[in-house]
Amino acid sequence: MALIVQKYGGSSVRSTELVKRVAERVVATRAEGHDVVVVLSAMGDTTDRLLDLARQVSDLPSPRELDMLLTTGERMANALAAMAIQALGAEACSLSGPQAGVLTTSAYGKARIVDVAPRRVRQALDRGAIVLVAGFQGLNPETEDITTLGRGGSDTTAIALAAALKADICEICTDVDGVYTADPRIVPEARRLDHLTFEAMQEMAASGAKVLALRSVEYARRCGVTVLVRSSSGTGPGTTVSASADDGHGEGGAITGVAHDVSCAKVTVTGVPDLPGTVARVFRAVADAGCEIDTAVQNVPGPEAGVTDVTFLLPGEGAPAAVAALRGIRAETGFTEVSQDDDVAKVSVVGSGMRARPGAAATFCEALAEAGVNIEIMSTAEIRISAVCRTARLHDALRALHRAFGLDKPAVGSGA
Amino acid sequence: MALIVQKYGGSSVRSTELVKRVAERVVATRAEGHDVVVVLSAMGDTTDRLLDLARQVSDLPSPRELDMLLTTGERMANALAAMAIQALGAEACSLSGPQAGVLTTSAYGKARIVDVAPRRVRQALDRGAIVLVAGFQGLNPETEDITTLGRGGSDTTAIALAAALKADICEICTDVDGVYTADPRIVPEARRLDHLTFEAMQEMAASGAKVLALRSVEYARRCGVTVLVRSSSGTGPGTTVSASADDGHGEGGAITGVAHDVSCAKVTVTGVPDLPGTVARVFRAVADAGCEIDTAVQNVPGPEAGVTDVTFLLPGEGAPAAVAALRGIRAETGFTEVSQDDDVAKVSVVGSGMRARPGAAATFCEALAEAGVNIEIMSTAEIRISAVCRTARLHDALRALHRAFGLDKPAVGSGA
Repeated sequence: MALIVQKYGGSSVRSTELVKRVAERVVATRAEGHDVVVVLSAMGDTTDRLLDLARQVSDLPSPRELDMLLTTGERMANALAAMAIQALGAEACSLSGPQAGVLTTSAYGKARIVDVAPRRVRQALDRGAIVLVAGFQGLNPETEDITTLGRGGSDTTAIALAAALKADICEICTDVDGVYTADPRIVPEARRLDHLTFEAMQEMAASGAKVLALRSVEYARRCGVTVLVRSSSGTGPGTTVSASADDGHGEGGAITGVAHDVSCAKVTVTGVPDLPGTVARVFRAVADAGCEIDTAVQNVPGPEAGVTDVTFLLPGEGAPAAVAALRGIRAETGFTEVSQDDDVAKVSVVGSGMRARPGAAATFCEALAEAGVNIEIMSTAEIRISAVCRTARLHDALRALHRAFGLDKPAVGSGA
Repeated sequence: MALIVQKYGGSSVRSTELVKRVAERVVATRAEGHDVVVVLSAMGDTTDRLLDLARQVSDLPSPRELDMLLTTGERMANALAAMAIQALGAEACSLSGPQAGVLTTSAYGKARIVDVAPRRVRQALDRGAIVLVAGFQGLNPETEDITTLGRGGSDTTAIALAAALKADICEICTDVDGVYTADPRIVPEARRLDHLTFEAMQEMAASGAKVLALRSVEYARRCGVTVLVRSSSGTGPGTTVSASADDGHGEGGAITGVAHDVSCAKVTVTGVPDLPGTVARVFRAVADAGCEIDTAVQNVPGPEAGVTDVTFLLPGEGAPAAVAALRGIRAETGFTEVSQDDDVAKVSVVGSGMRARPGAAATFCEALAEAGVNIEIMSTAEIRISAVCRTARLHDALRALHRAFGLDKPAVGSGA
């Protein structure tokens, strides 16, 4: 008998019919003799509808009150699922984030989990109940107020609960049946992976793979929680993400997959005086605007001696604030211009095999060149190579890289 | 500077536009220098929509989970109102029932308030904030689960908070601008009352007047909380309900008004053996089915010696369960038949003036007789006379009683 945490996202519970189907799956898992903790997101577009109500009463809703409002969505889904499970004859008990002991920082709207004290979850499990915990929410223990965890919050709730309860596995039940070597809607040859290491999953998530939020993978890695990404319908073996380095490639290591991100923006600052500290001043302004710089390049000073251009990638949503902040320091730093380009995509190849493959960067560039994709910025990390190209060239770039790195055919001995 | 508790019902916040209007009223009260605590119901038909979702997943939802689900409605309204108040530049803080310290019994769906520990409400008031408390809900301190208070729950929340905070007044802001001598939709001559005693309001509420729930009036009376019933729009003086016996009538006392109730059902048990204990057995079966018997009459045994008929009024919603319970004891008690009649209405005249008016019952019967209304059951209490008639005769009955008891013209010196 195992203790299993199952998380279902909003699209898996977007109607009462689907809530009933999730209930059936949960009860089936319980019937196999396992203890089950379920983490649910809000039903379908509930959160968006609540946000819309908030906008109708206030241009700038207070984050505390917004969290009070939004957290009702997960509670509703949770209580309904508990009723559906009870209707199938099983015992169930729904708990809010605070009731489940999910303790967070005080950063409303983007709180981080600091501790999980799952006393009530344990008690309910000991009574034989299936326990449902509202995802995406927790308690700020200092003020006793409810908080939300921001993007990827429900995945993180599930993984944090699995860690605190020493669960055997945390199942992330979603629209897709696992982690793929590429987005199958773009690369038809993409294959489902049987297994990934935390490290590879982290790089995939950081490079734009949507199946698991980066922060939840980091949490799982830190606490050693084995994650199984699988279909909400319960069919198929899914993809296991764990610490195990055994990806069947021995020292050579494997190439995991290609990932892409179209949500980024490219910002270029031209005519930056080539003086010590000026580029640092530019980056500080961006950081103070709350933006994380991804990849940055600085041109070699050109014929116009004394000035240089700086280009970097930002999350698209944060770019306007960063550009505004940069305009504010233009006089002070003396640069010529700042521009934002949203028509960019980032493509990445990820895998521990990068370490042992000195020619990887060359393979990467050759593949894109042959596909006629122009690289605008390129960066390499330990197990990842990324490049920025035009959005229109994204599909060709992904297909070319998927082929060039041998992802079209099952890697020998990888079991994937 | 006073401390004012204001309660707004669901129809006063059925759209975000109306939430903003409530926010304006609350901020205006605060601007007059008062401390303000606001209790809100769920927006419009939110509770019905949540109940409908519950029915879609379960034929018999567990009361605990139903309360978890339903209490999200008041939280939403509350958080939205807090945002709307903040958008007007005032400080606001929304609290759930448990956060506000509303402690209840464990009877999910119909919990009763046992204590209010308003520490967090006080703290927020001391910070200068307008405090919003979700109505209709509380915490079962034994299990730390959320409960709902059932019908009239938000009025009771407001009055309980006013009592615990020693507020100067509890304003019940509603669709109508006060308590009337009769329902103005039926009796055009009905007048708004300036003042009522708790006792008269209790009898009016018990007789079907909808403006305040009986349990909330009982709570106010027990704790001595002065209640002001007024329009949500804030216009008009409203009706004050308090302990004061000064209704301007000296020892004579006043007639408060007429009330009616069409939600009742008449149950008749015929051929009941006229033996000691048999009627008691009938009433016990009804009570065990969870039904409160209102008015009961037992016929004098007729020519068929040894048997009698028993007729009583029940709340309409409980009648089917009571009738089923009675059918279950038919063999045991030996009665002939049990029948249910929903086509009945109860009309009542309420007022402390009843005490000093020996001819009141005669006036009552004469008025109905002249209007051609047949009385099926009649009962009198200390400050009330009630009769049951056909539903179709209700309007005529109310108008006749309103006229006969002099309610058409302002009572001399009553100020009403």
